Amino acid sequence: MDTSQLLHTNRQYEEELRGLRAGLLKMGGLVERQIADAMEALVKRDTPLARQVILQDEEVNRMDVESDERCIRLLALHQPAGSDLRFITTGLKITTDLERIGDNAVNIVERVIELNEEPQLKPYLDLPRMSEIAQSMVKDSIDAFMRSDTALADEVIARDDEVDHLNHQVYRELLSYMAEDPHTIRRATNILFISKYLERIADHATNIAEMVAFMVKGKMIRHMDKKKE
Amino acid sequence: MDTSQLLHTNRQYEEELRGLRAGLLKMGGLVERQIADAMEALVKRDTPLARQVILQDEEVNRMDVESDERCIRLLALHQPAGSDLRFITTGLKITTDLERIGDNAVNIVERVIELNEEPQLKPYLDLPRMSEIAQSMVKDSIDAFMRSDTALADEVIARDDEVDHLNHQVYRELLSYMAEDPHTIRRATNILFISKYLERIADHATNIAEMVAFMVKGKMIRHMDKKKE
Repeated sequence: MDTSQLLHTNRQYEEELRGLRAGLLKMGGLVERQIADAMEALVKRDTPLARQVILQDEEVNRMDVESDERCIRLLALHQPAGSDLRFITTGLKITTDLERIGDNAVNIVERVIELNEEPQLKPYLDLPRMSEIAQSMVKDSIDAFMRSDTALADEVIARDDEVDHLNHQVYRELLSYMAEDPHTIRRATNILFISKYLERIADHATNIAEMVAFMVKGKMIRHMDKKKE
Repeated sequence: MDTSQLLHTNRQYEEELRGLRAGLLKMGGLVERQIADAMEALVKRDTPLARQVILQDEEVNRMDVESDERCIRLLALHQPAGSDLRFITTGLKITTDLERIGDNAVNIVERVIELNEEPQLKPYLDLPRMSEIAQSMVKDSIDAFMRSDTALADEVIARDDEVDHLNHQVYRELLSYMAEDPHTIRRATNILFISKYLERIADHATNIAEMVAFMVKGKMIRHMDKKKE
């Protein structure tokens, strides 16, 4: 390969890598938006917005496949090594979590649509708080990935406890609602699942953060502290 | 590189690749076992067995990290191309699903342990049936991966509907239990979550099968038919 070919290949490589980073950032932004919209659809009882979250998911799914294709192309054509290789292989794994976060937002709005068919059971306080934390975790886990920032990754992992705690609180509260008045059971169960989906979104962000720590520090970080899902 | 070095490298490559296949098969077997044990712990009200499932999960987590390390090593040292490259990148993604299946088995037995502290609510009929299907889906999705067998992958994807259907049936039945007798609420909620975890295990197997189809046929198979999680 002569020098001009090599330069061309390098430029192409850098471009593909930038494309991968941009794609993952965009995908992260999209799923953050899905979570925010799902929560707004719940709080404002906005069924058309809920349906929009379902539509947004197609774009997330498309980006998931596109991102994997890009990773495989990068590996096939440029045989990256060292930190680039770890970045790309981590990217391959992270898209799965981002895509599942989108799925969970869809699962939330499916419940929201059902909830909107009946009078509101109670004002929502804990769920928007959970959603806010979960969203911040998704954002920061992706930022940590982009900047190989293990301190930020550790922060994300620590924040998961708060979401678990809120989820537990919601669970207890809803059980007592149901026990007091059986007419609330269907609605309470739907809210119970929404809380669970938010908690799972936080788990996915935690998984991303653990993979970032693994990418940077090596093998011993993942699965140090497994939580209830 | 002279011929003997090249032969050495090739042999090492083949060995690593065999190790990856063996590791993923073993990991698949372990999580299948976790599902079976979790269900037995439920049906036989066997709390010690439930605790064993939690312990088994450490091994699954260890294998997850080990398998990823092997994939990265294969990519770094041997720069595989074509179908080997797609096999390895798919392997990187599949371990995440296998590990989450293990997590879900742990989530099931956490509920089983709670359930075993109270009298049994009802005989379990649908859950063992769901578990059986979910287990067969996990097994077949891994077999499909090993043999690049897209017909088998398609079968796995098709079987997911049956699990979704059973999950829905369990949901309806439990809601009416709760409505009739508020004393059943705590137990019914635990069973509700077990049903959900089984359904999620089937989702993970479906994801693996979709990735196998993607690995073999290209990009258009994934996300063709998204289901409620």
